[in-house]
Amino acid sequence: MGSFSGHALPGSFFLVAGIWWAGKYSLWHATRRNKNIGSTRLSSRASQRLLEIIESSVILFFSIVGILAEQFIANGPKFQLYNVTESHWQDLMNWQHSTMYLFFGLAGAVSLIIHTTEAAPLALDRLMLAIAFFNEGFLFLFHLHGRTMLDVHVHQLLLFAIFGEALVAFMEVFHRGNIILELLRCTLTILQGSWFWEIGFVLYPPSGPLWDLKDHNNVMFVTMCYSWHLAFAMLVVSVLYYTVSCVVRSRLKRTPRMEMGLLKTRERDPESEDEIL
Amino acid sequence: MGSFSGHALPGSFFLVAGIWWAGKYSLWHATRRNKNIGSTRLSSRASQRLLEIIESSVILFFSIVGILAEQFIANGPKFQLYNVTESHWQDLMNWQHSTMYLFFGLAGAVSLIIHTTEAAPLALDRLMLAIAFFNEGFLFLFHLHGRTMLDVHVHQLLLFAIFGEALVAFMEVFHRGNIILELLRCTLTILQGSWFWEIGFVLYPPSGPLWDLKDHNNVMFVTMCYSWHLAFAMLVVSVLYYTVSCVVRSRLKRTPRMEMGLLKTRERDPESEDEIL
Amino acid sequence: MGSFSGHALPGSFFLVAGIWWAGKYSLWHATRRNKNIGSTRLSSRASQRLLEIIESSVILFFSIVGILAEQFIANGPKFQLYNVTESHWQDLMNWQHSTMYLFFGLAGAVSLIIHTTEAAPLALDRLMLAIAFFNEGFLFLFHLHGRTMLDVHVHQLLLFAIFGEALVAFMEVFHRGNIILELLRCTLTILQGSWFWEIGFVLYPPSGPLWDLKDHNNVMFVTMCYSWHLAFAMLVVSVLYYTVSCVVRSRLKRTPRMEMGLLKTRERDPESEDEIL
Amino acid sequence: MGSFSGHALPGSFFLVAGIWWAGKYSLWHATRRNKNIGSTRLSSRASQRLLEIIESSVILFFSIVGILAEQFIANGPKFQLYNVTESHWQDLMNWQHSTMYLFFGLAGAVSLIIHTTEAAPLALDRLMLAIAFFNEGFLFLFHLHGRTMLDVHVHQLLLFAIFGEALVAFMEVFHRGNIILELLRCTLTILQGSWFWEIGFVLYPPSGPLWDLKDHNNVMFVTMCYSWHLAFAMLVVSVLYYTVSCVVRSRLKRTPRMEMGLLKTRERDPESEDEIL
Repeated sequence: MGSFSGHALPGSFFLVAGIWWAGKYSLWHATRRNKNIGSTRLSSRASQRLLEIIESSVILFFSIVGILAEQFIANGPKFQLYNVTESHWQDLMNWQHSTMYLFFGLAGAVSLIIHTTEAAPLALDRLMLAIAFFNEGFLFLFHLHGRTMLDVHVHQLLLFAIFGEALVAFMEVFHRGNIILELLRCTLTILQGSWFWEIGFVLYPPSGPLWDLKDHNNVMFVTMCYSWHLAFAMLVVSVLYYTVSCVVRSRLKRTPRMEMGLLKTRERDPESEDEIL
Repeated sequence: MGSFSGHALPGSFFLVAGIWWAGKYSLWHATRRNKNIGSTRLSSRASQRLLEIIESSVILFFSIVGILAEQFIANGPKFQLYNVTESHWQDLMNWQHSTMYLFFGLAGAVSLIIHTTEAAPLALDRLMLAIAFFNEGFLFLFHLHGRTMLDVHVHQLLLFAIFGEALVAFMEVFHRGNIILELLRCTLTILQGSWFWEIGFVLYPPSGPLWDLKDHNNVMFVTMCYSWHLAFAMLVVSVLYYTVSCVVRSRLKRTPRMEMGLLKTRERDPESEDEIL
Repeated sequence: MGSFSGHALPGSFFLVAGIWWAGKYSLWHATRRNKNIGSTRLSSRASQRLLEIIESSVILFFSIVGILAEQFIANGPKFQLYNVTESHWQDLMNWQHSTMYLFFGLAGAVSLIIHTTEAAPLALDRLMLAIAFFNEGFLFLFHLHGRTMLDVHVHQLLLFAIFGEALVAFMEVFHRGNIILELLRCTLTILQGSWFWEIGFVLYPPSGPLWDLKDHNNVMFVTMCYSWHLAFAMLVVSVLYYTVSCVVRSRLKRTPRMEMGLLKTRERDPESEDEIL
Repeated sequence: MGSFSGHALPGSFFLVAGIWWAGKYSLWHATRRNKNIGSTRLSSRASQRLLEIIESSVILFFSIVGILAEQFIANGPKFQLYNVTESHWQDLMNWQHSTMYLFFGLAGAVSLIIHTTEAAPLALDRLMLAIAFFNEGFLFLFHLHGRTMLDVHVHQLLLFAIFGEALVAFMEVFHRGNIILELLRCTLTILQGSWFWEIGFVLYPPSGPLWDLKDHNNVMFVTMCYSWHLAFAMLVVSVLYYTVSCVVRSRLKRTPRMEMGLLKTRERDPESEDEIL
């Protein structure tokens, strides 16, 4: 990549993914919590499955687009791996990015298979997601040889979000449907997305002077900036969660429901803790 | 900060927080264990919620005070981030400390929302606490560039307590109400608090000669000293736990209770293990 | 080892083991899922136990063969540890490999005892496997002193698979029969096997020019190559899992079954998630 | 310490502790497994509690002896921390070892309180053990400045056992009574004990020539040797477990029992897996 748009593009993808997931999981959680007052009209099992299928297809589609773009746009390697005449590897960067897309594509494909057929265990989609993120972090980890201090640092900070997300997705294999883990994953996705934008602004500022990549004060500022991005991501997820919860409740209130349901809600309230965990 | 009082102040806050938590969780645990002999009079669900709300408000209040103090007292940056005339970042240290307070403030705010409304899942308060401590450790981690050996070492030791506490708080998301984890968190908070005082005494001794910051014997002594602080923190938490347990039991004994309750207690005693876990 | 065949041989073993396990666990999982339509004819508890006994015996046998081969073939140390006349350790490499085989042999022996007698707790076989892999990684970790950059790197990449597998096997102590963890372990075993082959090709190319072991581009290519091996391993396991599932279902369809069983299947479908986890 | 006996002494303690624990947990596990054929005669709840009290007292006693020995024998610091006349810390090594004993003493004291009174939650004894081992490893970690390569290496290897044991003890807080974790802890204790002896033999050979502390071949040999110690520890624990199981069963067979019990045993056999975990 090595350009502003080369960082802004994946950043935008992760931002959209994070916001989409935050909305999706908030809706499903609200549906589960209000099950006894008829919330299943808003999000039935069938519609959930449909949503998953669409999401998986979109991920798969953009992964293939990403691979093709890396290979053919901007003097890409065009699926040629080794340059025999000059005896060196052809555009290793593009190949690495293609590999990252490949794993997200695999995660999408497996998720698609899981939700269209009954062939594979359900928890596999989270494992594939964990592997895709782990692979992304793994390639970034050995990606940074010989760069300047600030360049290395901003990419290392990215690894916190990536490996953190891989870990959270792996934990979801065992704690599927835990809203805390789901929202944490959304937060880390948004963090990753906005940090890609930040990397673009720091390393390839579209306007204004260049940053001094060897100044330690810049390293300290950038570290702090990462915390702010995290706070921002938490804010976005909170607002989304709250909005979706309110909308679900208000739509349920406008429709009649059974008295029994109402009573049950009140009864179960003090024990909602167990349900959430 | 860079002064004795700059370390003593957060140290005092953590000491107070640790002692407060140790008392609170000991009381609640004693209440749960003696439920069948009428202990709910001492700490009902409503009073527990009230306590949480007060605690959250206090944390939120002091976080805001902390941010304002860092910004305006002692030549702070007054919310100015970049000094354009001299082309450097303005008071990065104060900004970093403000960021730490910000995350504790967020944890307080979220906890306040959780316990006043039903909007968010209960376990979120522990996740926010974990993130606040993680963020504190994260900023400290990249905070130490170019300092002398002993200075780096005393701050690194602090990271054991901070990251340990972040981990314990994260585990509480899944094991809420586990008294072992709660007391461990209290211990690590007190350890953190007393170690802040120790850092103040080592780096900025209010009286007596300065420490040789490059002597390896001092590093070894300080490491051992950290163990003693841990032992001290464990002692404080034990004494608090024991005192609260005794007070709860003695107050329950002075009041009449049902015979049935008594029998149940004796019956359940051998199985208390399951209950605790 | 230090030769092409010295890496290809263990690589082949791990490949075979990974493929075998993938088949075995897929079969058992398919059996469990289709229990109520009579799948136990295909894989009864007795036949499962027999399979485990055969597998353990094979592992034990090849471990002993491996130890003997390392000691006696190709100028091995012949169980002589110290060369007194020349005052140095005798063939430390061979001894290290013997030690690795020893731990796999122990895992096989313990597994054999567990499945023939009732003497030991069942979960012990996974712990022994975890220890065997951990020991392999542990010896590799201190195996790399003074080698060239690429040589160190390809072996370090191997450690990801080895320690990952040790961790997964240890998790299986607590989550025995979790198909996700089992398939992940198979994947990592195949990854390990194919990577051993890759190491052979990189360090001791049987034909063509030697690799430049100090070129950083080669390091980056090899890292990416590792991801491809992982994708390949995932593909192999998926194909195996899918094939076995199809075969089991088609064989069950050709035989009559009870109506009751059919109804139960349909009923339990939406909750299959819980069963899998 | 810095002498052969200074490593052999703690080594012997850990060996005895590991063997004792292996016996104890094997006995209790055998008791639990054969509960329905009257095994509670061999190890009742009361006798278990008595055993725990004796064990805790012994640990507490030897910890105090250890502290006093470090302070007063062999020119110890006699509780004097700082040498004012010469301006240096007094015998930091002895103080560090005293601190290690202190934490084991605390673990013993807390365990004693837990098993004599009902004051504290049961799982606390495992947490205290975890903290004691963690503290031991923590002090060793910053103990090695400026030593020669082999000296550092043998102590680093020790850290694998110590931190591993701390981790296992911490996991037992949540999985109390899991025989796999208990036996693993015994194994690591014996490994630690026998490795202390090995360190004594390597660094202070009582007879024969000194080792070359800078030879990398010695580092490799010592690493392999550590694996052998682990295999040895596993063997010892296995033999103990097997012996205790056989003795318990043979003693139960010699006495009459109820028919009902027998039937129950056979019934529960296939599900023993769940019971173990």
